[in-house]
Amino acid sequence: MAVGSGCAAVWGCRRVLKRAFSLHNAHSVKGMEDALQLVRNIVPPLTAKKHKGQDGRVGVVGGCREYTGAPYFAAISALKVGADLSHVFCTQEAAPVIKAYSPELIVHPVLDSPDAVHDVGKWLPRLHALVVGPGLGRDDVLLSNVKDILEASKARGIPIVIDADGLWLIAQQPALIQGYQKAVLTPNHVEFSRLSEAVLGDPLDGQDRRGAVLRLSQALGNVTVVQKGERDVISDGKQVLECSQEGSGRRCGGQGDLLSGSLGVLVHWALQAGPERTDGFSPLLVAAFGACTLTRQCSHQAFQKHGRSTTTTDMIAEVGPAFSRLFET
Amino acid sequence: MAVGSGCAAVWGCRRVLKRAFSLHNAHSVKGMEDALQLVRNIVPPLTAKKHKGQDGRVGVVGGCREYTGAPYFAAISALKVGADLSHVFCTQEAAPVIKAYSPELIVHPVLDSPDAVHDVGKWLPRLHALVVGPGLGRDDVLLSNVKDILEASKARGIPIVIDADGLWLIAQQPALIQGYQKAVLTPNHVEFSRLSEAVLGDPLDGQDRRGAVLRLSQALGNVTVVQKGERDVISDGKQVLECSQEGSGRRCGGQGDLLSGSLGVLVHWALQAGPERTDGFSPLLVAAFGACTLTRQCSHQAFQKHGRSTTTTDMIAEVGPAFSRLFET
Repeated sequence: MAVGSGCAAVWGCRRVLKRAFSLHNAHSVKGMEDALQLVRNIVPPLTAKKHKGQDGRVGVVGGCREYTGAPYFAAISALKVGADLSHVFCTQEAAPVIKAYSPELIVHPVLDSPDAVHDVGKWLPRLHALVVGPGLGRDDVLLSNVKDILEASKARGIPIVIDADGLWLIAQQPALIQGYQKAVLTPNHVEFSRLSEAVLGDPLDGQDRRGAVLRLSQALGNVTVVQKGERDVISDGKQVLECSQEGSGRRCGGQGDLLSGSLGVLVHWALQAGPERTDGFSPLLVAAFGACTLTRQCSHQAFQKHGRSTTTTDMIAEVGPAFSRLFET
Repeated sequence: MAVGSGCAAVWGCRRVLKRAFSLHNAHSVKGMEDALQLVRNIVPPLTAKKHKGQDGRVGVVGGCREYTGAPYFAAISALKVGADLSHVFCTQEAAPVIKAYSPELIVHPVLDSPDAVHDVGKWLPRLHALVVGPGLGRDDVLLSNVKDILEASKARGIPIVIDADGLWLIAQQPALIQGYQKAVLTPNHVEFSRLSEAVLGDPLDGQDRRGAVLRLSQALGNVTVVQKGERDVISDGKQVLECSQEGSGRRCGGQGDLLSGSLGVLVHWALQAGPERTDGFSPLLVAAFGACTLTRQCSHQAFQKHGRSTTTTDMIAEVGPAFSRLFET
């Protein structure tokens, strides 16, 4: 097995899995390699019989006056992981810039229109997953539109990944996502504290990250939570997985967008594969573990080549080789 | 002969050719290699005596609010196959983005202007082929303009390739293309079903793809039809060719635009070469076989390098090597 992970990653994962299983008396997964195998199980085969779209049509909601890179990073990462089509729903002003980054994306300049909810809503029947938040910003009008888009997506049962200022919205109105078990939140340290404060009213216990993530997920009604950090801690309120795949010390902006965009595809694949392919684990937990591992591996590979000058564009260039190395062995 | 095709491709093609010939008691072509040779016969020599434009001036009609990548992919593919000039006729809003993708293209922001038909029409005398539909969308005003552009192009005898939402328009008004034997339609699975329903009123017989394509072409008055799929099935209502050149399992958006753009050039070359260079086969049938083979070979080569992360941009980078390998041996 050629995964470029150190012992820390393997044992970190194994320890947590053991803990999860001893807590819940569940499964027989034996560490990092087994967790990677679960991700491999959800990756759909590429066959000549498929039609365009079957391996994933993902939508990214974000892109505003200030931010255009983030939704691009998320949407292009989805394509490079293996989605067939990648849409961006952004403001009028952001659209031509995001379009110009790549002819691969379908970019809709609708997020600040008076008919935003209708304009996005009519695409929802064609989307397998929505990634909400990359480059969204905090404009009240946009956040109000996104609130209604979230409601419409939930009504259709569409899986939703929420990151960045999408999490700001959730911290203001946790009820928006409460109990929606097809949602994954991907907070960094600051975003996690804000959510934890809003949902649990607790000061964060920095000593027990696993417990904190488990509790937040439970309080949200088993929404899957990915706390990004030195290790990524993932919970669906029942089990806790930890990803310590070797990444790099580089913390340039945009890495979270690679994670959320990748996760959009993997969540669709995992739900399509179903729990029998994930050994009884929640499909969303496995998808999140896959996206974390992939993002860290991309960071590692890019850093090997570019060192301190590594940017997210360098990491995205590694998505193909990293995916292949981790999940197509 | 260095074509990277498996036996399946060779025999798939040979079998169908035999079937076509036994049905129609026509020619003596003996399989894939012979079909490739017919394509080679239509490729014009590059000589020092030629002037700019002689090897092809192609126009792509498409590019709107949502879609800018598709007309770019089609237009740049035409250039990379060997056209001398590649025009795009798109909406005002789409134009700067498409221009920004590449300085190689001549982009006209006219498709939503009140004078769209005149603005495109004045370029028609200079164009050798028109590719209608990539990134066109379904806006009623645009479709109405395109309808008039189609009429003007037919009146001038310009060869027309129709794909994507151009096929949506044809499904609404099949009379637009009825009996125009310089037209090639390139439907995917869904588009073919829609056309078949509109023209024949028949539920599609999935078991007999060759028969279905032959019948649709006949019903349209011998318009050439290319049904894209696991194998591409091509008919002019008299003969049926099948292309099973090895491609890849990747189904990312944009591959159809590579096909339609390439076909724009090849249709011009084939008609210029005439039936004596295509062994009595319809020149458009040979052009379509060439474009299908090329697209699949690009997909194959890109997938060899990029695997599941392959996107259409990676495929377009292979047009030159793939063309050379297939048609310049």
